[in-house]
Amino acid sequence: MTGLRPEHLPYGVFRHAGGAPRVGARLDEAVLDLAALASDGPLDEDPALFAQPSLNAFMAAGGETWARVREALRALTAGPDAEPATVPLEEVELLLPVAVRDYVDFYSSLDHATNVGRLFRPDAEALPPNWRHLPVGYHGRAGTVVVSGTPIRRPSGQRREPGDDAPVFGPSVRLDVELELGFVVGVPSALGEPVAVERALDHVFGVLLVNDWSARDLQAWEYRPLGPFLAKSFATSVAAWVTPLEAILARRVAAPVQEPAPLPYLREEPWALDLDLEMELNGTVVARTNARHLYWSAAQQLAHMTVNGASLRVGDLFASGTISGPERGQRGSLLELSWNATEPIALADGSTRSFLQDGDEVVLRGSGGDALALGEVRGRIDPAA
Amino acid sequence: MTGLRPEHLPYGVFRHAGGAPRVGARLDEAVLDLAALASDGPLDEDPALFAQPSLNAFMAAGGETWARVREALRALTAGPDAEPATVPLEEVELLLPVAVRDYVDFYSSLDHATNVGRLFRPDAEALPPNWRHLPVGYHGRAGTVVVSGTPIRRPSGQRREPGDDAPVFGPSVRLDVELELGFVVGVPSALGEPVAVERALDHVFGVLLVNDWSARDLQAWEYRPLGPFLAKSFATSVAAWVTPLEAILARRVAAPVQEPAPLPYLREEPWALDLDLEMELNGTVVARTNARHLYWSAAQQLAHMTVNGASLRVGDLFASGTISGPERGQRGSLLELSWNATEPIALADGSTRSFLQDGDEVVLRGSGGDALALGEVRGRIDPAA
Repeated sequence: MTGLRPEHLPYGVFRHAGGAPRVGARLDEAVLDLAALASDGPLDEDPALFAQPSLNAFMAAGGETWARVREALRALTAGPDAEPATVPLEEVELLLPVAVRDYVDFYSSLDHATNVGRLFRPDAEALPPNWRHLPVGYHGRAGTVVVSGTPIRRPSGQRREPGDDAPVFGPSVRLDVELELGFVVGVPSALGEPVAVERALDHVFGVLLVNDWSARDLQAWEYRPLGPFLAKSFATSVAAWVTPLEAILARRVAAPVQEPAPLPYLREEPWALDLDLEMELNGTVVARTNARHLYWSAAQQLAHMTVNGASLRVGDLFASGTISGPERGQRGSLLELSWNATEPIALADGSTRSFLQDGDEVVLRGSGGDALALGEVRGRIDPAA
Repeated sequence: MTGLRPEHLPYGVFRHAGGAPRVGARLDEAVLDLAALASDGPLDEDPALFAQPSLNAFMAAGGETWARVREALRALTAGPDAEPATVPLEEVELLLPVAVRDYVDFYSSLDHATNVGRLFRPDAEALPPNWRHLPVGYHGRAGTVVVSGTPIRRPSGQRREPGDDAPVFGPSVRLDVELELGFVVGVPSALGEPVAVERALDHVFGVLLVNDWSARDLQAWEYRPLGPFLAKSFATSVAAWVTPLEAILARRVAAPVQEPAPLPYLREEPWALDLDLEMELNGTVVARTNARHLYWSAAQQLAHMTVNGASLRVGDLFASGTISGPERGQRGSLLELSWNATEPIALADGSTRSFLQDGDEVVLRGSGGDALALGEVRGRIDPAA
């Protein structure tokens, strides 16, 4: 088998030949059927963990099980003689990998927050006063998280045109992409008991790419004072493949010191993930960035999210917020890339874009060196209802 | 049986004598065991709908089943000779009635929004420009919705003292109550397909009281620009009993015309619910208000929430936002009642309160005439961790 990536082995949920959904692990262009491997013997685990419509049962089994399964899959797939039974990727239907409980979206890229501040609040300081003290975040809609490949219908809603007092209603005219990294919770926590920052990653099962589609015109009108709502809740796309945290942590690198120093409950050795990320629009790569640009780590996000005693459930999803770097080509949203439509982006076909048109297709990709490729997130815009 | 309220018959989930959780209907101080009634014959339904840890399976069965069950329970319980088998309320443990999917909190009381605007944003217009055009709302944390009676641990978090640049960390010193009405979704909707305002109530199974506990000091520091997060996510208490929508709609009354007229997708004959509501703190009733004070209806909230194509799931919960009336004694939060601690409230024991102290107990109650009493929401404050 060529291009085998035993250090990666992301998990997903698939359906094959009209069968019931089951958990699989991806090996290049093929899928290991974990329910079959457990039933037939090579994988010494309860098949019920994998004969499931989501990863949640497997995740709920806990970290020791995750490590044991990963080790067993490595043994089954590594080495020149390994010939594990697989299903061709092209023959399977990929399903939403996680039954998402609560979905939290953070805002942890300094460049993104600064850019959005400049564009949305030109008369104020770009960065809100709280931004360097806590990972700003909010709850999104878990029920509209969809798997890569699901068509995205353009949302309608209220927007207010510049100079008008009253809003108008109609399809969003500023439909946007947000390139994000998502973290899936596999170990729950008890209500009333904060998770310490140094224990936070113990609760994370894995990582996946997220496109937090955003209707900027709806957002600008609705978001004060309680935050984004319909501008985000129509759909959030996630990859079909969840990369195990262990594989991702191989890409851990030191990060700059945070200034001012965070409060003690957020304090840790600064780190980030060296993951190359890109956004492709209709075949043209319009942004290349890196998860290193995130100011707050996933551990800090999780510690913050629970410091008030909020509990975690298996299947909670929290995302980084749009990942932008300091250069123009490193911006993770069209709002920033086109500087709110004042600098349209040129595509390879000669056309330009500021925001998404009907029929446009966006693909997010991520990788960490030669060994690790995150599952892509793909979505095409359907016209409004 | 005295005091029987056949027109009410709220549903809940209970455990009795160490048995498995099951769905019940409340009859005064007793509980009808619907799983037993279905197994034994008097209720001609699949017992599996009721041998459940939540109402979700029953809700998912749809409106015809709800109507049939309600009619059957009326027949079983009405009339002078009715002697249905019940379990005494005092012998059961009441559980969270709904497995909550997405939780949305609105902000639909004009007086509340005006008061909060004055207190939080004294230099701006009290009412945000969008407020009369759409029901402002945001997503809350579904995983920390707890049943009445669950102790509430005081959350810790960041707050910034007046005049300071940097925040401090510690237990919230402005812990508050929000008296709200919640609506439980029983009929799902498809992604990409808005629910029309005139069909919105078809999706609602029932109504229950909600206490959306709020840490005002955390909220003031964190909420810009993405809205409330940790200030709310530590706990939201709901009643153990869900009143069927049909019973609630008997309290429907005409409401004032909305000015300006809402956009067409929000337009309906103005209506509200005539439900008397009260907040008790340590045995003293500190507020008496009424759901009539809500500006936006539940139908408008649901139509708005889905107009962008967001789908509904069985178990979604949406709440009204704090219900305040124009008079001081009609305010549904301590923030408003004590006017941000400048006018402390006197309790019957001679003490005063601005915000909640450890050990304080809050009870929310609601009723509609003699026949309809909403399940109460009770919660006592435990000290911070």
